[in-house]
Amino acid sequence: MSILQTLILFSLLLSASHAAVQDFCVADLMGPQSPSGYLCKKESAVTVNDFIFSGLGVPGNTTNLIKAAVTTAFVGQLPGLNGLGISLARLDLAPGGVIPIHTHPGGSEVLIVLQGSICAGFISSANNVYFKNLNKGDSMVFPQGLLHFQVNAAKGPSIAIVSFSSPSPGLQIVDFALFGNNLPSALVEAITFLDDAQVKKLKALLGGTG
Amino acid sequence: MSILQTLILFSLLLSASHAAVQDFCVADLMGPQSPSGYLCKKESAVTVNDFIFSGLGVPGNTTNLIKAAVTTAFVGQLPGLNGLGISLARLDLAPGGVIPIHTHPGGSEVLIVLQGSICAGFISSANNVYFKNLNKGDSMVFPQGLLHFQVNAAKGPSIAIVSFSSPSPGLQIVDFALFGNNLPSALVEAITFLDDAQVKKLKALLGGTG
Amino acid sequence: MSILQTLILFSLLLSASHAAVQDFCVADLMGPQSPSGYLCKKESAVTVNDFIFSGLGVPGNTTNLIKAAVTTAFVGQLPGLNGLGISLARLDLAPGGVIPIHTHPGGSEVLIVLQGSICAGFISSANNVYFKNLNKGDSMVFPQGLLHFQVNAAKGPSIAIVSFSSPSPGLQIVDFALFGNNLPSALVEAITFLDDAQVKKLKALLGGTG
Amino acid sequence: MSILQTLILFSLLLSASHAAVQDFCVADLMGPQSPSGYLCKKESAVTVNDFIFSGLGVPGNTTNLIKAAVTTAFVGQLPGLNGLGISLARLDLAPGGVIPIHTHPGGSEVLIVLQGSICAGFISSANNVYFKNLNKGDSMVFPQGLLHFQVNAAKGPSIAIVSFSSPSPGLQIVDFALFGNNLPSALVEAITFLDDAQVKKLKALLGGTG
Amino acid sequence: MSILQTLILFSLLLSASHAAVQDFCVADLMGPQSPSGYLCKKESAVTVNDFIFSGLGVPGNTTNLIKAAVTTAFVGQLPGLNGLGISLARLDLAPGGVIPIHTHPGGSEVLIVLQGSICAGFISSANNVYFKNLNKGDSMVFPQGLLHFQVNAAKGPSIAIVSFSSPSPGLQIVDFALFGNNLPSALVEAITFLDDAQVKKLKALLGGTG
Amino acid sequence: MSILQTLILFSLLLSASHAAVQDFCVADLMGPQSPSGYLCKKESAVTVNDFIFSGLGVPGNTTNLIKAAVTTAFVGQLPGLNGLGISLARLDLAPGGVIPIHTHPGGSEVLIVLQGSICAGFISSANNVYFKNLNKGDSMVFPQGLLHFQVNAAKGPSIAIVSFSSPSPGLQIVDFALFGNNLPSALVEAITFLDDAQVKKLKALLGGTG
Repeated sequence: MSILQTLILFSLLLSASHAAVQDFCVADLMGPQSPSGYLCKKESAVTVNDFIFSGLGVPGNTTNLIKAAVTTAFVGQLPGLNGLGISLARLDLAPGGVIPIHTHPGGSEVLIVLQGSICAGFISSANNVYFKNLNKGDSMVFPQGLLHFQVNAAKGPSIAIVSFSSPSPGLQIVDFALFGNNLPSALVEAITFLDDAQVKKLKALLGGTG
Repeated sequence: MSILQTLILFSLLLSASHAAVQDFCVADLMGPQSPSGYLCKKESAVTVNDFIFSGLGVPGNTTNLIKAAVTTAFVGQLPGLNGLGISLARLDLAPGGVIPIHTHPGGSEVLIVLQGSICAGFISSANNVYFKNLNKGDSMVFPQGLLHFQVNAAKGPSIAIVSFSSPSPGLQIVDFALFGNNLPSALVEAITFLDDAQVKKLKALLGGTG
Repeated sequence: MSILQTLILFSLLLSASHAAVQDFCVADLMGPQSPSGYLCKKESAVTVNDFIFSGLGVPGNTTNLIKAAVTTAFVGQLPGLNGLGISLARLDLAPGGVIPIHTHPGGSEVLIVLQGSICAGFISSANNVYFKNLNKGDSMVFPQGLLHFQVNAAKGPSIAIVSFSSPSPGLQIVDFALFGNNLPSALVEAITFLDDAQVKKLKALLGGTG
Repeated sequence: MSILQTLILFSLLLSASHAAVQDFCVADLMGPQSPSGYLCKKESAVTVNDFIFSGLGVPGNTTNLIKAAVTTAFVGQLPGLNGLGISLARLDLAPGGVIPIHTHPGGSEVLIVLQGSICAGFISSANNVYFKNLNKGDSMVFPQGLLHFQVNAAKGPSIAIVSFSSPSPGLQIVDFALFGNNLPSALVEAITFLDDAQVKKLKALLGGTG
Repeated sequence: MSILQTLILFSLLLSASHAAVQDFCVADLMGPQSPSGYLCKKESAVTVNDFIFSGLGVPGNTTNLIKAAVTTAFVGQLPGLNGLGISLARLDLAPGGVIPIHTHPGGSEVLIVLQGSICAGFISSANNVYFKNLNKGDSMVFPQGLLHFQVNAAKGPSIAIVSFSSPSPGLQIVDFALFGNNLPSALVEAITFLDDAQVKKLKALLGGTG
Repeated sequence: MSILQTLILFSLLLSASHAAVQDFCVADLMGPQSPSGYLCKKESAVTVNDFIFSGLGVPGNTTNLIKAAVTTAFVGQLPGLNGLGISLARLDLAPGGVIPIHTHPGGSEVLIVLQGSICAGFISSANNVYFKNLNKGDSMVFPQGLLHFQVNAAKGPSIAIVSFSSPSPGLQIVDFALFGNNLPSALVEAITFLDDAQVKKLKALLGGTG
């Protein structure tokens, strides 16, 4: 067909797509958020690099209390995830490494072991425990919002990739929530039944005050 | 672990949470809305008071036509509700008080009677009527979008708390929609089969024109 | 119009509504569940009582470890809630009563104090603490999935009504999840940094084994 | 490639698709419903006819009180719509025909006029009226859950196609909900402020009792 | 009641509705988008015309390669659709006209034939084909995301109205995606198994390069 | 507290959780599906193995036309994913291997390269191409419903893990949809502009007829 006719047809498609909630909504990380995520960058400013992140190829620093690291590919690191209901992270567990009991308020998780062996589990609202040793290539599901954990079960380092059903699932580690801030010890004790000495010990360990 | 190591671990968590659709999206009520709710206040500006509202402790003014009052704890009064799919309201019904037939376009409702007795009901699309006298402590569900009503069934005042499956469910009272604006009487009559005199009487009562 | 004509019109409406996902989907609690909730009772078997529950009018039994009780009006008690994204519960807190640190995996919560005074709070993924003393009539929001707590702050009993953005939000109390089952003590210690003595003490208190 | 290799590749695709929530979930209209719609027919029993409906090509019978007919292509008539969040209907308006003030509890609506002229409008929760005469080819949006109406504005018959954001949006006509069942007259009067004579007149007209 | 009392009651309703996610969120097309759609125009600036579009009454220009035209009533043309999960379009098919194999990434589609006859079909993930000749008045469903097509089966022009379960479903025509841009021919050949000559021929036809 | 008191408290939690849409809804793969997924296994029959899958540890068979294999961990292989909005798959690409141009009707995708190098890309509704060579450790997002591809860019085998925002995203490969079934050649040619010889060649290659 003639260039003109081509343009006529294109203009239809373009008018439709420009008028649309775009096929994607790359996060404008400098702008405000809405309940559904960040506002979108203009489509004309979007490049392939907004959809790519290389950070999960780099081992996390495990020289810390938990001998473990969580490297996230959430919307803040990978703005093309905005609004898409998915994200990734990498877990590095040194020998003795632990991802302490935690939840992701915003989504479910599925994990696959890339190296080593990991003892992983979750607990249901009925207080039933579901846990098992996972080896290289094994996948495990952690349903939305439930308390769960991962512990290195190998002599050497273990590595896993985890995926979430949200571009920003959040990460709430119970110990940091209870002992890593200024929540008064007396209140922590009341809501956990922990002894005063235990609470003060963990507050000291995790940088909490009060 | 050392403060440095603590900070390393914290920085991971903070980078994740700052990059996230926050755990919450407190409404910036001065800003624009999106289809999913108001844009979020910066997390650094959020305080506990954004999640608290005291207005439901105050009886509503029932010296009006319906001898009743609806006091809302919607996102406009309680900005921490933004994006969370829930809200509250208080119903005060003086003797003879009525919440006229109405709908909430945005959500379902569940009611609990705190004082007195209330005759409450809803009507289904199949025109079946579901209504009953509720006493103190009774709860009742009103499914999304259906016409429903509450009438004081006690000699004294009755009070109820209602909850909605939306931070801003809306409230559309049929009488106000039909008679409280400038919708022409002839049109009101055509779409309701009401007599002209009846329509004009209610327009006068409810401040409508035309 | 004639009865016949009335029936013609009715039959249209009825055919539409019978063909519909009903205006409501009252849970058939004897049947299986789907990810979106229980299967629906036949509309012909539904009565107004499927939408009403009286259990929240009865004080919960607080003669237990936490000196508190949670009485739920979830879909299991109020089948009309099925699929509607909302539910209720009643909190009774005797003097010294506590709802220990917990989450609701399935939804957000809003609370209103009916009697007494309650110290309530939640912690964000960034480990910020949001808590305050609530008095009669005060409401507070607890965003989805975050750890939160309620402690009686009155000399006498306190009562609150809470609403959730799910017909079955779940309730996961951290202490019961960690200490009320057969999760091995060594594993509990690894994922919480608690001392062995502390873990064994709480397992004994909460009926856990291993 | 060899037939064997083709089968290897196919088997992958088939195993994936058979394991899936199918690309579609054609309603098994004889079976139970869930909150998300009817259960699905087995994919092997699905034919192209499950996705096709011819009923909207037939004018509705307008010899009735409202001189109008609503012919639905909801999930009950077009089972391929199940779970897809969309449906259609046809409006036939004879001279003087009216679709009385009504709501669709389950979804939003968009209308396009195919023949004649229609005066259509809706009312917002703020009681603002939005209405206009629509001519052939004009489209109008009716946002979710709001009271709206359509009145024939032509001397001859008018026809429109309407689409909904639900496979079963429901249809609740206020007059039928108030006057077409056994809701007691005294209660109708209390919740509408209508005069007793008016209520009894409309109950007689619409087949209501009590 | 007195005007004052009327105003008291109104002010309640207004405060609620102004505080709300509005009953509707008319798109501010000049502003940014969020994952849930455009930001909303201020309710005070909204008029009935934001909910009305006349463009579907005008035949599309079919003097082009595909002898067909797609005229959209998406959110860009009809801003009142923003956030409502529905939209419309008009298909004009001249003799020999074709809407080539395509998908709508954002939603499902239902089509009704207004004039002529159309051969329409879709293909499932299991590679099953569902297609049929549709005559005037016939409707057909095209489930979300699946490849589908429409071909004029009449000697004269055919017209259809299509509705989508999204205010901006998008439109991705496979030929334009493969041959209408600068995707290198070698890469196109690798991912389609098409011969080089075929790819170069279609790139020339559709304005592609490389 | 006494065992009795413990049981009292437990019974509350259990009654709540048994009444709930469970924390999880493990698929009963033998039973029917709903639009939201499979019906749930009884919680009493659920074991940790319902949440674990080992199949992604095994390389797929790449001795086929595309020199590639897709091994899925969708709900059919990992029933614990049911209703959770997430799944995994493994891509094996032998030298010269290709995942041909395809879509996932049900969700978005994020990919991480575990070994080798992959040229991956997608095309937007505006026909813009976004593609790049990804190395080990690189992640890339493919927004919902858009055509995309992966081609081995390494001399040796490449491996990737992909995650989807659905437990059963589907997989529609354009070549199999067009040439791997009985869609008549004349119709294929009409909706693709491909030459008859090209269509017949690919039908022969992919096992299509007609």
